[in-house]
Amino acid sequence: MSALLQGPAKLTLAQKFSRLQGRMRDPEWRRFGRNLLLGKLLGLLVLPVLIFTIYKVAGLFTISSAFAADAPAGTPVLSTDLADMAKNPVINPINTAWVLLGAFLVFGMQAGFTMLEAGFCRSRETVNVLVECVFDTCVCGLLHWGIGFAFMFGGGNAFIGWHLPGDPTKSLIFMRDVDVLSVYGATGIPIVAHYVFQFAFADCASTICSGAMVGRTRFIGDVIYSIGVSGLIYPIFGHWCWGPDGFLATMGTPGGFLESLGMNFHDFAGSTVVHSIGGWVAIAGAIVLGPRLGRKFKRDGGGPMLPHDLTIAVIGGLILWFGWYGFNPCSTLSIMDNAGAGRVAMNTTLAACTGGIAAEFLSFYLIKKWDTPAMINGFLAGLVAITCPCYWVSDVGSCILGAVAGVLVIGAMELLEHYRIDDPVGAWPVHGVCGIWGTISLGLFASGQYQAAGSSPTGVPNIVPKSPEALTGLFYGGGWSVLKAQCIGSLIVCSATFAAAMVMFTVLNKFGLLRVTKEDETEGLDISQHGNTAYPEYVTPEASPFTAAPVSARGAMAPIETATAE
Amino acid sequence: MSALLQGPAKLTLAQKFSRLQGRMRDPEWRRFGRNLLLGKLLGLLVLPVLIFTIYKVAGLFTISSAFAADAPAGTPVLSTDLADMAKNPVINPINTAWVLLGAFLVFGMQAGFTMLEAGFCRSRETVNVLVECVFDTCVCGLLHWGIGFAFMFGGGNAFIGWHLPGDPTKSLIFMRDVDVLSVYGATGIPIVAHYVFQFAFADCASTICSGAMVGRTRFIGDVIYSIGVSGLIYPIFGHWCWGPDGFLATMGTPGGFLESLGMNFHDFAGSTVVHSIGGWVAIAGAIVLGPRLGRKFKRDGGGPMLPHDLTIAVIGGLILWFGWYGFNPCSTLSIMDNAGAGRVAMNTTLAACTGGIAAEFLSFYLIKKWDTPAMINGFLAGLVAITCPCYWVSDVGSCILGAVAGVLVIGAMELLEHYRIDDPVGAWPVHGVCGIWGTISLGLFASGQYQAAGSSPTGVPNIVPKSPEALTGLFYGGGWSVLKAQCIGSLIVCSATFAAAMVMFTVLNKFGLLRVTKEDETEGLDISQHGNTAYPEYVTPEASPFTAAPVSARGAMAPIETATAE
Amino acid sequence: MSALLQGPAKLTLAQKFSRLQGRMRDPEWRRFGRNLLLGKLLGLLVLPVLIFTIYKVAGLFTISSAFAADAPAGTPVLSTDLADMAKNPVINPINTAWVLLGAFLVFGMQAGFTMLEAGFCRSRETVNVLVECVFDTCVCGLLHWGIGFAFMFGGGNAFIGWHLPGDPTKSLIFMRDVDVLSVYGATGIPIVAHYVFQFAFADCASTICSGAMVGRTRFIGDVIYSIGVSGLIYPIFGHWCWGPDGFLATMGTPGGFLESLGMNFHDFAGSTVVHSIGGWVAIAGAIVLGPRLGRKFKRDGGGPMLPHDLTIAVIGGLILWFGWYGFNPCSTLSIMDNAGAGRVAMNTTLAACTGGIAAEFLSFYLIKKWDTPAMINGFLAGLVAITCPCYWVSDVGSCILGAVAGVLVIGAMELLEHYRIDDPVGAWPVHGVCGIWGTISLGLFASGQYQAAGSSPTGVPNIVPKSPEALTGLFYGGGWSVLKAQCIGSLIVCSATFAAAMVMFTVLNKFGLLRVTKEDETEGLDISQHGNTAYPEYVTPEASPFTAAPVSARGAMAPIETATAE
Repeated sequence: MSALLQGPAKLTLAQKFSRLQGRMRDPEWRRFGRNLLLGKLLGLLVLPVLIFTIYKVAGLFTISSAFAADAPAGTPVLSTDLADMAKNPVINPINTAWVLLGAFLVFGMQAGFTMLEAGFCRSRETVNVLVECVFDTCVCGLLHWGIGFAFMFGGGNAFIGWHLPGDPTKSLIFMRDVDVLSVYGATGIPIVAHYVFQFAFADCASTICSGAMVGRTRFIGDVIYSIGVSGLIYPIFGHWCWGPDGFLATMGTPGGFLESLGMNFHDFAGSTVVHSIGGWVAIAGAIVLGPRLGRKFKRDGGGPMLPHDLTIAVIGGLILWFGWYGFNPCSTLSIMDNAGAGRVAMNTTLAACTGGIAAEFLSFYLIKKWDTPAMINGFLAGLVAITCPCYWVSDVGSCILGAVAGVLVIGAMELLEHYRIDDPVGAWPVHGVCGIWGTISLGLFASGQYQAAGSSPTGVPNIVPKSPEALTGLFYGGGWSVLKAQCIGSLIVCSATFAAAMVMFTVLNKFGLLRVTKEDETEGLDISQHGNTAYPEYVTPEASPFTAAPVSARGAMAPIETATAE
Repeated sequence: MSALLQGPAKLTLAQKFSRLQGRMRDPEWRRFGRNLLLGKLLGLLVLPVLIFTIYKVAGLFTISSAFAADAPAGTPVLSTDLADMAKNPVINPINTAWVLLGAFLVFGMQAGFTMLEAGFCRSRETVNVLVECVFDTCVCGLLHWGIGFAFMFGGGNAFIGWHLPGDPTKSLIFMRDVDVLSVYGATGIPIVAHYVFQFAFADCASTICSGAMVGRTRFIGDVIYSIGVSGLIYPIFGHWCWGPDGFLATMGTPGGFLESLGMNFHDFAGSTVVHSIGGWVAIAGAIVLGPRLGRKFKRDGGGPMLPHDLTIAVIGGLILWFGWYGFNPCSTLSIMDNAGAGRVAMNTTLAACTGGIAAEFLSFYLIKKWDTPAMINGFLAGLVAITCPCYWVSDVGSCILGAVAGVLVIGAMELLEHYRIDDPVGAWPVHGVCGIWGTISLGLFASGQYQAAGSSPTGVPNIVPKSPEALTGLFYGGGWSVLKAQCIGSLIVCSATFAAAMVMFTVLNKFGLLRVTKEDETEGLDISQHGNTAYPEYVTPEASPFTAAPVSARGAMAPIETATAE
Repeated sequence: MSALLQGPAKLTLAQKFSRLQGRMRDPEWRRFGRNLLLGKLLGLLVLPVLIFTIYKVAGLFTISSAFAADAPAGTPVLSTDLADMAKNPVINPINTAWVLLGAFLVFGMQAGFTMLEAGFCRSRETVNVLVECVFDTCVCGLLHWGIGFAFMFGGGNAFIGWHLPGDPTKSLIFMRDVDVLSVYGATGIPIVAHYVFQFAFADCASTICSGAMVGRTRFIGDVIYSIGVSGLIYPIFGHWCWGPDGFLATMGTPGGFLESLGMNFHDFAGSTVVHSIGGWVAIAGAIVLGPRLGRKFKRDGGGPMLPHDLTIAVIGGLILWFGWYGFNPCSTLSIMDNAGAGRVAMNTTLAACTGGIAAEFLSFYLIKKWDTPAMINGFLAGLVAITCPCYWVSDVGSCILGAVAGVLVIGAMELLEHYRIDDPVGAWPVHGVCGIWGTISLGLFASGQYQAAGSSPTGVPNIVPKSPEALTGLFYGGGWSVLKAQCIGSLIVCSATFAAAMVMFTVLNKFGLLRVTKEDETEGLDISQHGNTAYPEYVTPEASPFTAAPVSARGAMAPIETATAE
């Protein structure tokens, strides 16, 4: 009986099962056991009942308040939106399919991000990357449903939203007043479908951050900052740009922010909203954390720690490119504008191609080797850059702005080395820097052929060449106004993001929640945080030291000497 | 000539080529060779002619008997279904695109399953997993075309189907009487497209089984049981639930099974049909096979053998999640019900998120580490659970039932340890247990807002709150009837599956076809069955012992001591 | 100052930054630095201005000449195509969505190809495979936009195209005269969307080539031949088959090539155009290059070098199968022909299944092991073969022709061994040989039920049984004409491709651009060309010798003795 006296907490579940089995042979224990079992089952019942009661009280168990008890049974309560739906009995479903399939493709980018980050890190921190990417996705899905979507796409004020656009009595918080007939504005797409699309975007921003913080972040710290990014930073700053009344979205309009500018901020699929926000949170995290133990920078005779699996990293990059075809083209929200969707797909392809080629040749010029990270980050840079302007620029414009992104990303990677900032996957060079470039490039390359309002859900061709309605950049004779609007928007969002993220990470760091202890980092995050290693059969802790690899196998990007543990 | 006398069978093909080349210099051999060549070519011709004749006789070379010789040339023979098609000249194509794209996404899950299983096994059995997953897919595609689709979706009786629903004269066996105008029931989707969608589902069920039998199954045994699962168990038991006249599908209707119940069995996308069937075949296989050599369980001081590549396993899990967006939303079969498809996508997302979070926190509570397998199996558990109720429950309901699934999967994994059952990838906890939970949860959480019949192909909003047509669960005031129907259906299908699978595996085992010999298992399945290893450059047989990894690198799920070979 | 006198070229970027920082403390240097910075910024401005001017002069900055300055502002200039678009306000967008989603799936095959090639090679040449596959994609995207699409799909003459079909005044070169209203012929799909679809196809052809040339090709050689394949060989020979006036596409018509034949060449989705062209360029490359150092063939007592990662290879194969569902079904270009798309999807599935099963059983018969490469190449062979005939054959026909492909691919791999040609991934057996077989098989199996013209964009059922309009093969009583047309087309395209590729590779080889030096190959391409290794933590150069693996871990396909370095 001494084991029992020591308390059951010290037994594993399996041992408890064994004990139970032994006791079942004793009649007294059997009676006791039966009572215990009944009690536990009752307990198990209490839990859902409790949850049920809480939600019942909170009114969350009915999707829509329209289905109140006083509505006669069997009478469908039709919202005013139904009139619109009825008018477009085929168009709305088609557009919903387009957006949902886009959502699925963008969600697929999670596999790409996870592979890219896992491949670029050392094997000793791989499991940490894997678990974080998946956990962040789960947290983001829940938060975007609970508050994110409401904050970002809800009507409200210039800074934050919370209700169904056009109807302040209907809350979007926890999708409370969303019913099957609720559509998002003029798109004709059910809000429930729009949520899935936007969750996938939010998840990208959230995952981008973790890339720069690989290898030294406590898991609990990751959980907390993920909540901050997915629940507050991304949706609130995103509301400024994409919300129905965000101050950047309405900038330059009568009564709006900077009325005299006469031009609002444009970001078609999120160079700023998704990528800049992700990238600038990432750099804040990398700065507050400091570099990984043993990381020596080029000016100190070191170089980036070697990616442990380039195969996984490159395949991840290709899957990201694949998913980007949901990210950009499906952001038309309406395939009725099929020419627009096709143009976006073409421009996306071209910018990726020139970004990759430019980065690869520049990198060859610099180090005389055909470098792998330059190849990947090059086409990703082109993709990030084209994300904002893809709808309004020409194919030639896409080629040029993609190539410039490919050059910038290499320069930004060198800048990080210079300032001794350890960003293991290049999250800031790719998403932070090229997100800004892409946003600004619209001010230069907008070709003056397409409506400023973006895609046309009605299917009327949206061509308005040389008219005031067309978005026209500096190089196409449109003057400085678009460029100014883009610079202002990018500056505001990036600064606000960086500031908010610095505050968040500094506070987390103060409470010791952000960085693992020296001992845990020396042991490796996989073992200290997760108790697993990724490849237990052929990578033992000894085989995965701080300093990744012998000189003979080292990458060209780190040409001087092997980084060593401090 | 002695080599010839010994018979050509002992020469490799390459050696034969060499011999041939030598002989061609000898004029006599050249004449002989020419004759031989001619003979062989004739033989090669005979084979297709023979096949052709057989099929010609069997009448299989014409897709449709409607195209008989007596039909005047050039006259399209229009089936009565054409009238329906003509009425919906745009809607049917749109829905076909929706279902086909869903089919492609679900097929993509094969890559996910294969990665998950390969990553979770030891490297010494990886090639076996890879070849089995692909071979099973090939077998399943052929069988589902030949008999599976007919057995499952054909009209017939309460237990099995074989003909076009509504037309007993047209056989679906080998798609014999399917022509280009044949659509599946009210869906308006060509049967040929519906077959591809349903093949992808059947393939999932088939692949799930193999996960629990990794590392000790003879390849020939895998081939045979695959035929049993894909050709008989899945389609026949599936017919009960999804067939036009299956006894569970028509349960509670006048003249049907359990008429007094007044409620039929519901399984929107297959928590029972796909996942429970897969999971319960899997556990039967694992029981009959017994554990792998050297596998020690927790109660014996061991623990699960370590996954050899967590990167591949986690990416596989994410690809499964990606593919699930085809599995559930596209199961509406009609995107005209766009609100339904969006709701399904949202609910699928939420259940995955809460499943992953619940499992991860529970696992952290139990072992004080942020465990990787718990993370993956957690969100997969949520996905399996939401698969049945996704159309009829609210978002809050999805969150709760997903979280419960995340708890159940951890408990079920402990249960397997306790009963000393070796299920290397957790196929039964994820698919078997959470498949049952998901099926039953509909009886609790059906929100009473949506038609019992499922999606509405005509595009009429299917909202019927508080009406008898709405499917309403216990927690929403709908009483016990849905819950009863779900319990009955789940119990019948799971028991029948388990029983049939036990018989099948026991017979296979009796004939020595199921488990490899001790010598072959010791050598490793990859070498003994396939003659390859997965990573010949860095994982030698010595590096991949029975006991996977040294203590220092071992996972937290196995905290006591290293499992050792017996 | 000596460092400065030595010239700045010898300093790394990081060192320059350090120097700059030091100098900023010296007031004189600060003034000098400011001027330098201004100068460099001016230089940076000059570059885009220069590019801008060049393009402005070349007129490339306006997508369409229709938007000339003399058009009144705000007046949309509608091309005559708009009338067609207006007639089909919903159908064209639906078909565009279908084709774009198909394009995305086909692009996703790049991930599959890259995994397949990377997995099948040795780890010492993995990085090279990765960088080449991505770089080729970037080059192909740019070239297909610049010239490839115009050469292939433009109107012109029988051998090459350049202008909008039907309007010789509008150039397709660099998409010069393509505007938002330009649709491709009767398909109703915007040319910009069609370009993305066709780029993905071109990219497949381009990537196939690299598979046979793994492990000994200079990167610069890869860049040059990629330009040749993507920019000239593929689009020009492709024009013969798919161009609006290609001589094989119009073969047998009055005034066309071989008028007396009365039958043109058919290739639904590209068994010839994509796969044969890719495969025959590949074999030419492998022949000119010669085998890798240390490669011993079966007749010399060796065998294929071992794939370094079968997991990645098999997953890559499955992703290819997944992407093939975009390749074949979406090649209908119109989902209005939904029965056709469904039939193509079914036939594609069946041929893959029988191909895999046939190859696996044949390989088991030959080597008594369930071989992995046979499994993968088997189903890929079935997929390649069904690509041409998928629209016109029955399900039974698909099963047979897929199985034959599975047999042929094994035979072709033996043939390469016999002729001592080193094709590391089996590009020629899969794509070259089965591409021919698939093309020819249409002449045998075309079932006489479907219009010769392919899919019907208008949605009218395209069933024309036993009429002259139906494509009917030899086995279905259609006589020899289809078979003849297919043989002629396949022969012409394969011969022309092989000849052109041999010339290209021989010239490259003469200038020393094709094969790396013996020293570089001995060191490994990854280090010599790219300065990285794929897995620096656990695969050191010593661990990845020429001869891949110890005897104990060697594959069954190479049963006699270990290949050794010369």
